[in-house]
Amino acid sequence: MQHESFNKLNFALKKLWDRELSRSKFINFIENNQVPKHLYAQYLIETYHYTQHNALNQALVGARMDINNFSYQRFCFHHAEEEVGHQMMALNDINNMGYRFDENELPKALPQTTVLIAYLYWISTQGNPIQRLGYSFWAENCYSYIAPILKKVRTDLDLADKHMTFFVAHAEIDSDHSAEVERMIKKVCLTEQDSRDLSEVMETSLVLTVNMMDAVFEDYQAFRAGHSDRGTLLEARLNG
Amino acid sequence: MQHESFNKLNFALKKLWDRELSRSKFINFIENNQVPKHLYAQYLIETYHYTQHNALNQALVGARMDINNFSYQRFCFHHAEEEVGHQMMALNDINNMGYRFDENELPKALPQTTVLIAYLYWISTQGNPIQRLGYSFWAENCYSYIAPILKKVRTDLDLADKHMTFFVAHAEIDSDHSAEVERMIKKVCLTEQDSRDLSEVMETSLVLTVNMMDAVFEDYQAFRAGHSDRGTLLEARLNG
Amino acid sequence: MQHESFNKLNFALKKLWDRELSRSKFINFIENNQVPKHLYAQYLIETYHYTQHNALNQALVGARMDINNFSYQRFCFHHAEEEVGHQMMALNDINNMGYRFDENELPKALPQTTVLIAYLYWISTQGNPIQRLGYSFWAENCYSYIAPILKKVRTDLDLADKHMTFFVAHAEIDSDHSAEVERMIKKVCLTEQDSRDLSEVMETSLVLTVNMMDAVFEDYQAFRAGHSDRGTLLEARLNG
Amino acid sequence: MQHESFNKLNFALKKLWDRELSRSKFINFIENNQVPKHLYAQYLIETYHYTQHNALNQALVGARMDINNFSYQRFCFHHAEEEVGHQMMALNDINNMGYRFDENELPKALPQTTVLIAYLYWISTQGNPIQRLGYSFWAENCYSYIAPILKKVRTDLDLADKHMTFFVAHAEIDSDHSAEVERMIKKVCLTEQDSRDLSEVMETSLVLTVNMMDAVFEDYQAFRAGHSDRGTLLEARLNG
Repeated sequence: MQHESFNKLNFALKKLWDRELSRSKFINFIENNQVPKHLYAQYLIETYHYTQHNALNQALVGARMDINNFSYQRFCFHHAEEEVGHQMMALNDINNMGYRFDENELPKALPQTTVLIAYLYWISTQGNPIQRLGYSFWAENCYSYIAPILKKVRTDLDLADKHMTFFVAHAEIDSDHSAEVERMIKKVCLTEQDSRDLSEVMETSLVLTVNMMDAVFEDYQAFRAGHSDRGTLLEARLNG
Repeated sequence: MQHESFNKLNFALKKLWDRELSRSKFINFIENNQVPKHLYAQYLIETYHYTQHNALNQALVGARMDINNFSYQRFCFHHAEEEVGHQMMALNDINNMGYRFDENELPKALPQTTVLIAYLYWISTQGNPIQRLGYSFWAENCYSYIAPILKKVRTDLDLADKHMTFFVAHAEIDSDHSAEVERMIKKVCLTEQDSRDLSEVMETSLVLTVNMMDAVFEDYQAFRAGHSDRGTLLEARLNG
Repeated sequence: MQHESFNKLNFALKKLWDRELSRSKFINFIENNQVPKHLYAQYLIETYHYTQHNALNQALVGARMDINNFSYQRFCFHHAEEEVGHQMMALNDINNMGYRFDENELPKALPQTTVLIAYLYWISTQGNPIQRLGYSFWAENCYSYIAPILKKVRTDLDLADKHMTFFVAHAEIDSDHSAEVERMIKKVCLTEQDSRDLSEVMETSLVLTVNMMDAVFEDYQAFRAGHSDRGTLLEARLNG
Repeated sequence: MQHESFNKLNFALKKLWDRELSRSKFINFIENNQVPKHLYAQYLIETYHYTQHNALNQALVGARMDINNFSYQRFCFHHAEEEVGHQMMALNDINNMGYRFDENELPKALPQTTVLIAYLYWISTQGNPIQRLGYSFWAENCYSYIAPILKKVRTDLDLADKHMTFFVAHAEIDSDHSAEVERMIKKVCLTEQDSRDLSEVMETSLVLTVNMMDAVFEDYQAFRAGHSDRGTLLEARLNG
């Protein structure tokens, strides 16, 4: 991908974030309300769920017989190695906030989280082998966009860095990753079709992630209205 | 796996090599005859075929949802990364001997090579997630066993290091790998069942590899008797 | 699943349809406007795309090693066999309306259709082996719910049965299927967890299907506003 | 495939059976000795193991995205449906001979059986989608070749039809299957490459099956020499 096309991609991403952040009920609620602890905890639980699959579906791209590019293949395995176990940071953050969860006791993923996971496996194993880079592109690079929200969460919940290892560590790790992803996109995204496939995955995976956030918000509202098992479980496990 | 069990495993491997090397028609022929160029070239072609899958099936172990061990998972992806593209060394060695093959022109894998490949995928994706270490255990550690045969090939065909990059490079790389594999076996092979599963894969994958070698020898004999397409193709591509 | 639970499931489905039909922009537009030909054609194109995967992901349920129930396994393969090639009915309906598309010329699936497809593969190959019945349950049984909309489409576009083979044939086929699906649910959906898993898949797959419909509507609006490649292609292929 | 090519295939199969039956130590032993009960029981155990995968890997052929032929796809699912649960006939035959095994208590598959299973999955999911017909071709059609051996087993062990349901039932079922397989081969095996791929799978899968038989014989010899866990288990479960 040439420099100019890459700039276009970056610009499209900026517009996409603007659209998604402004349509998201989860984001809007956080911006305009004192952030409730359970809301953030539930979000971290979903983060735990999809994050545990990221190393796996990243590796599956490299294990495709049609990958046909050694340096991209190495990138996939290298990146997969670095993602191993990152879900534990989300779990630690949950427990550092005062909850008590063992790994196997967490509530199941919300349906919208399952949809995100399903989609990431699908685009990793089917279609254009380069397209998962569209997910990496925004995911490794999201901190500038979500920094204000994270700051609001941190202030409202009075969290220190040690309560936010998932985001703090990723912000650090990902500035390197982000440069590698950019380099790889420029190297393997060569045709118009490649660009379209990558852009579609970038947009769809970001939309599904925001849908997941909004499902967290919906579940929180259901909890407030007295009918969410997840919220009730969170309540029970807080300092319990 | 405890030190004593590991020693047993090593001893079982030694006995296995003795048995397999002495039953192999391919090995016996090489030991007792001037090595024909086509025989070695055909062997390298099969090596090319199964080697191109090794990074892939290694990564698939790490991508299993039942792997349940972060350091083993990292090992799988790390090792997969290092195996990427090694088949090109086999191809280079073939062409350095005077053949002219592009990657896509190589004859298809022999059926016995396909059987080996099929088996390695199966044990990587099914059954005990640690069992593929039984393959790595002998494969990363085979040079002491096959050194005399390689030396005979080298002398007979008057080959330099640059004609044997696959084996020379692997002998070097693999002394590191071998130590990592040993460490990992000691870490994750914990139960009696683990040991049995690992041993079965060690033995079966080595037997299938020797079967592959013997199929190379059989095909060479067929070529000498005037009815092997593979041998005829090799003839045509030599200095052609 | 006992009779009472099954009734609950049926009731939950009715509520779900009410909610989804009333939130759908696609449905609302059709109910309140003269139906444009391209809108229905685009819907059939998406139908073609996901339908071609239904036999495949249905068979993958039967091919799971954890399925553990012969009569359910037979049901999966039997049902898969019956679904083979049904996408061609959608294609025929498109072309019978005056479009000219070969199978390979259809526009790619919309992202929301890909999300639906990805989800159906995921729930077919992961998690509770019985859960895909939650999809079959509503899909084989949807004609009473969508009959008024189909009637509106038929009237507005002046279509005969031969233009609506996908829906007419399925309405017939599916009344049998529906009884088989009901029988199978009663047989294999035994625990509380089974019911929850099946219900989640029922709801999520129906929501994703309506999302797909709404994406068709959105794309039609984009076409009307002058910026949809899909709409432009439809225009070009009409009586062209 | 044209009539003449099909005759060639049949002739090649006849030669293959002759070669394999005469090289097999298992077959030779049965022909020339009073058949020991444990030997036949162990063979049925291995039959149980690979048979339970046949419906699955047959269905996986139909679930391939590159299958591209509706009538072959239907054949795959139809055939898969018919193969469901056939392993239970082998288990019943074992228990009807006086052994007492629950399904989960059977000894693990022998390594050579695992190799056969691995190969059948591989050729079902990779390479030419039509090639698994090479396995069906001999497997659905093997009774004329193995009838003398089965008769010898039946006489020596004084077995009735009810002790040989696996073979008696299959001989009946498979005469139909065999005609369907022939019809399908003639329909989808069209190119020279198709014929080569199908022939390779025919030969390799038959060789691996005979290797499995010979592994049964080897294990029986080990039992007689006092060192086979499998034989000891059989002994314990006989009328036990």
